Amino acid sequence: MKKIINDPLKVVEESLQGLLYANGDLYEKVPDACGIISKERNGKTAIVSGGGSGHEPMLSGLVGKGMLTGAAVGNVFASPDPYTIKETIKAADQGKGVLCLIWNYAGDTMNFDVAEDLASMEGVKVSHVIVNDDIASAPKEDKKGRRGVAGILFVAKAAGAAAELGYSLEEVKEAAERANEHVRTIGIAITPCSIPGNPPNFELGEEEYEYGMGIHGEPGISRESLVSADELTEKMIGDLKEEFGDLKGREAVLLVNGMAATTDLELYIINKKACELLKEAGVILYDNIVGKYCTSLEMAGASVSLFILDEELKRLYDQPACTRCYTQKYGKDG
Amino acid sequence: MKKIINDPLKVVEESLQGLLYANGDLYEKVPDACGIISKERNGKTAIVSGGGSGHEPMLSGLVGKGMLTGAAVGNVFASPDPYTIKETIKAADQGKGVLCLIWNYAGDTMNFDVAEDLASMEGVKVSHVIVNDDIASAPKEDKKGRRGVAGILFVAKAAGAAAELGYSLEEVKEAAERANEHVRTIGIAITPCSIPGNPPNFELGEEEYEYGMGIHGEPGISRESLVSADELTEKMIGDLKEEFGDLKGREAVLLVNGMAATTDLELYIINKKACELLKEAGVILYDNIVGKYCTSLEMAGASVSLFILDEELKRLYDQPACTRCYTQKYGKDG
Repeated sequence: MKKIINDPLKVVEESLQGLLYANGDLYEKVPDACGIISKERNGKTAIVSGGGSGHEPMLSGLVGKGMLTGAAVGNVFASPDPYTIKETIKAADQGKGVLCLIWNYAGDTMNFDVAEDLASMEGVKVSHVIVNDDIASAPKEDKKGRRGVAGILFVAKAAGAAAELGYSLEEVKEAAERANEHVRTIGIAITPCSIPGNPPNFELGEEEYEYGMGIHGEPGISRESLVSADELTEKMIGDLKEEFGDLKGREAVLLVNGMAATTDLELYIINKKACELLKEAGVILYDNIVGKYCTSLEMAGASVSLFILDEELKRLYDQPACTRCYTQKYGKDG
Repeated sequence: MKKIINDPLKVVEESLQGLLYANGDLYEKVPDACGIISKERNGKTAIVSGGGSGHEPMLSGLVGKGMLTGAAVGNVFASPDPYTIKETIKAADQGKGVLCLIWNYAGDTMNFDVAEDLASMEGVKVSHVIVNDDIASAPKEDKKGRRGVAGILFVAKAAGAAAELGYSLEEVKEAAERANEHVRTIGIAITPCSIPGNPPNFELGEEEYEYGMGIHGEPGISRESLVSADELTEKMIGDLKEEFGDLKGREAVLLVNGMAATTDLELYIINKKACELLKEAGVILYDNIVGKYCTSLEMAGASVSLFILDEELKRLYDQPACTRCYTQKYGKDG
């Protein structure tokens, strides 16, 4: 697979430098570690996330006012090491403690666990919420076994808003848990991706798609013949509705996320059908986000996330936020 | 080529509906025509652009406060017809006249020409500026023969700011012309794209790239063996510098634009080298934008644009803007 890179082993390091050049007004580098922190640090509860690279603009794109305070940056599709995470936690802390938002993958949960212990030993009050919104990765009864994907956008939004409102670490954690309980995601892929310097990480036939594909190319629920966008969307929305039960009269935010190579034209076709199906089911669309937020290198595909609001989540969602990722959509923050 | 679509002939129509669902707070549809207009219409000189689809988020993504008032939407890689453009012009007009910003392609310039005549006959004062920033498409001496690509971002920014400041149609046109004179772009492709329902629109070998590729897959200057990101960037920045002559001490905005499938990781690697080369040349980077602004369906590749500022352009660049496309980067606008 052709890539526009120099050395496959220096992709993340060089890219991070390019990111910092472009966004020096928003971010600082964590001293001596591969992480970034927001310049917007205001003495409140801090929020840190992190994970492997290759999902840009996530997670670094969520750093900024009203969302994450910092992000630890791992190699492509690999968790950041405990030292990197610990240094990011320390850099983000403003004396009120740090909540970590962790995508549910073995490497990430393990490394964050060690990092939190290390940070605690250095006097930082730290806690975490594990994000597990991908309904394809484990059955409903095993929610804790599910992977984390694009839905982290809403968890970071709720936690960030809670922090801005002056909530304590425990209260920010409650807000993040509440958001995580209220968001579900399902994705599809029509082409694979490849880690720089490596062959594609799986193969798909010319007429096939993978239903429930993970964001690192983890196998999904089934491999099927590609059908129309409307049929794909019906299947995805049907499975999301199944998770929540009766949604009539409920307010929700719909996120249609592109994996990378899929064009905005395709994403908006999915969005059209998804909106229509949700309206038919009586869902009140409070907001609707379409774009590339949680990608999988150059994979073609998409995911659909549904974030169901209650009064508290709606209040948090309405708070201003200003990050590279989220301010693509001027919703309630205008 | 697999796509997530329904009917290849309905891609643009369905996608536009999905776009309007997601952005009902920002846009209205032009009545009875395939175009969108900003809800932010404030009695000032209006600005309309338009062109074929497949370059999303452009051009619709430039519609909003401080940039375009409206965009006429053509089929994939095909100019909107004169009726569509004329209706978009009429819908955008607020009595102060309409400036059209036209990418320099035969179909677009011809259809805008007819549309402007039709709109004039219906009483709208209308004028235009043709955008031709792609240095690969014709030699320096034939600037008017060059195609328009990602640099339209800066032309729309300058024109939109001028309109917001209350400039007349003639003055807004001058601002757009000045911006167009000060921006140059060069692009590369490493994979082709394909119009929905069609095979790829060209072929590239496993180790090849095309230097100077157009955004519809038009042939570039040369086809060569793929080299490192740094070497590609040196070539692109070298050719851009050649256009402007001595840039020592000049202020500029650098835009590194992804064609679609190229990851943000790769774009930031290009950006790192581009920033370093420009700094070495004595350029003062006033702002630096990295992301997918002017795409070519699912093509992998990138373009680099350099926008040289003078006092007037800097003043215009500093004005607030709020669109889907431009507010990805929080630069001088807060």
